[in-house]
Amino acid sequence: MMRQNFAVWVMVSVFWSQACWAQQAAAPAGPDDFKPASSNQPGRQYPQVNSEGRVRARIVAPDAQSVLLDIGGVRYPMTKGDDGAWVGDSAPQDEGFHYYQLNIDGAQVPDPGSLFFYGAGRWGSGVECPARDQDFYALKNVPHGQIRQNLYYSKVNDSIRRCFVYTPPDYDKDTTTRYPVLYLQHGGGEDETGWPNQGKTNLIMDNLIAEGKARPFIIVMDNGTWTTASPPRRGERGRGTWPPEGWADNFKKTLLEDIIPMIDANYRTLADQPHRAMAGLSMGGMQTRVITLASPGTFSHVGIFSGGSISPDDVNKAPGFKEKIKLVFVSYGSRELENRRTGFGGDPKANADALKEAGINSHFYVSPLTAHEWQSWRRGLHEFAPLLFRD
Amino acid sequence: MMRQNFAVWVMVSVFWSQACWAQQAAAPAGPDDFKPASSNQPGRQYPQVNSEGRVRARIVAPDAQSVLLDIGGVRYPMTKGDDGAWVGDSAPQDEGFHYYQLNIDGAQVPDPGSLFFYGAGRWGSGVECPARDQDFYALKNVPHGQIRQNLYYSKVNDSIRRCFVYTPPDYDKDTTTRYPVLYLQHGGGEDETGWPNQGKTNLIMDNLIAEGKARPFIIVMDNGTWTTASPPRRGERGRGTWPPEGWADNFKKTLLEDIIPMIDANYRTLADQPHRAMAGLSMGGMQTRVITLASPGTFSHVGIFSGGSISPDDVNKAPGFKEKIKLVFVSYGSRELENRRTGFGGDPKANADALKEAGINSHFYVSPLTAHEWQSWRRGLHEFAPLLFRD
Repeated sequence: MMRQNFAVWVMVSVFWSQACWAQQAAAPAGPDDFKPASSNQPGRQYPQVNSEGRVRARIVAPDAQSVLLDIGGVRYPMTKGDDGAWVGDSAPQDEGFHYYQLNIDGAQVPDPGSLFFYGAGRWGSGVECPARDQDFYALKNVPHGQIRQNLYYSKVNDSIRRCFVYTPPDYDKDTTTRYPVLYLQHGGGEDETGWPNQGKTNLIMDNLIAEGKARPFIIVMDNGTWTTASPPRRGERGRGTWPPEGWADNFKKTLLEDIIPMIDANYRTLADQPHRAMAGLSMGGMQTRVITLASPGTFSHVGIFSGGSISPDDVNKAPGFKEKIKLVFVSYGSRELENRRTGFGGDPKANADALKEAGINSHFYVSPLTAHEWQSWRRGLHEFAPLLFRD
Repeated sequence: MMRQNFAVWVMVSVFWSQACWAQQAAAPAGPDDFKPASSNQPGRQYPQVNSEGRVRARIVAPDAQSVLLDIGGVRYPMTKGDDGAWVGDSAPQDEGFHYYQLNIDGAQVPDPGSLFFYGAGRWGSGVECPARDQDFYALKNVPHGQIRQNLYYSKVNDSIRRCFVYTPPDYDKDTTTRYPVLYLQHGGGEDETGWPNQGKTNLIMDNLIAEGKARPFIIVMDNGTWTTASPPRRGERGRGTWPPEGWADNFKKTLLEDIIPMIDANYRTLADQPHRAMAGLSMGGMQTRVITLASPGTFSHVGIFSGGSISPDDVNKAPGFKEKIKLVFVSYGSRELENRRTGFGGDPKANADALKEAGINSHFYVSPLTAHEWQSWRRGLHEFAPLLFRD
């Protein structure tokens, strides 16, 4: 059963989570130009970020023995002042958005200074480190599309589910125009709020459309978390059957039988293969790969952000894929390629090049100096969207 | 400047906040039928609520010296178990939704087990105590309207603002139908997320419409927090000039000059006085009173939930009000009337009766056994909506 406020009807799996065993680390001092993060709660002065990307947290905890700032898989000690407030800095973080938390005498808690985001299987704190290219997802005085919360009944799951739907700025102006649709999926441990919240999907699209760089289209953001089988634990990856057979079947069935027909019935879509795309990040990218390889008659454009790639061998085994698919887009954060986890099946850039040689329109993008995090995926969407539905 | 994720461009005033100086209190044992709250994060077992409405919190904090559950203005001690987890119960709470937090060695933090809601000037924990009448805001398999996040430029404030707009279930089915509009405001220390999240506005309306009890209409939920002047501090109330002169002017101007024209331009509204209503809770009710008394040519239906009432004297001083207004609805939680704060100007029920005698269609509703909290306001909306736009 769904909870109204935030969707919660499925098990949560922490899949490509950045979390690892945290350790204490001392943080050397950096430039004293800390400013409140743009991701703070209204009026809150902390956390702050400096020009190096160091995050400074502060919390009043007069009777605590130990307070730690837990970010990027590292726990940084904080120091108590005479006012009972603990303050501490992290090492420099990459540009963009990072999940984090505080640890107060052993309790892992959200920082009450930050806004909260769903990721790593929980609603918790996040912090924005200013990025050189943040203009592409800035809130500007341009025509804005809407993000719509859409509740619907799923026959496949016999439950009421939620998706968010981005409609472009002019959607309600001319009610005769019909639009292409991108189905855009989150990663493991995240949900359908990821792309509209930390993903900044609507602002990225509003800005691209205002600049004439992307064709206006609808974006559907649903919940792709495993529902039919228990998600495999991390430790099971090495056993050779990961992800397990059929792991994407429930979402595939839900998408094809419930979500797409519901969207085509309730929105002014161009309801055909040339005007339907699928993309996703991490787990959502792996779902995109599996689902589009199996359904080239349904989707024409494919985007995989930090979730592997489609190989020429995949294409050869997927009847109709080569003939019908108009674009395969693959992206990563550069730090993923520097120190990439195994399991994606080879070098994604080499695969993208091989696809191109095999006659498939293929694009590859690397986000500079970012890891398996949202800045890579914001940039991935920003590069992918202009390539869509250019017929 | 607005933050994308949650609206934050104005100062936050904690106005009729329930918070008061908390104190420690011992909680006697109650029935051992605790169940996870419906407001929990996915998969979280705590907090729990029992059939008496006691809230049981639990948090792992192995090195803490003191952990308290802070709810309803009282701090309840929690006790550490051998597993390093602290557990503690509150006294029985009223039915419905309550803001709360944990205190760990002096640090006031959200409970990582709960979903988060904006109220009392912060995003923090909330807990649902099951209510006998919770069916009216339950998620059911009925046609669902949408909640739309709507960004727009405000000339009055020279900023980009956000509102949420509820569109009824059939809004996109027949694009020739036009709808009445209710402008629905939150209380002090809250924002435009209050009615769509903890207010459960869309579910209340979906269910009423499915049962044929309310006419379908659009609901606009914007941010009415003071923007032109610093909000008065609580202690200033006694000085005789509270709320200060002109406190509602900025929102009135924003509503009349920016919000209503924007809504009428972008949604299929019936853009005239007979089909435009305003209502609000607490501070939002006080704004509704001031704005509708000054603008009876703009609004025809008026709802004030726990925010005072309109007196015959008010009406006499407001030209056109008596002739043009079709409904004045006033509601309270019963506990507010039992132990009501002064400052609203008399007995609201007596005022409602006097209005009726003076020839104004007036309704008065008291929510049983609830205080200045969301269960009173959910019920207020549930009673108010069926009375609207019955022409």
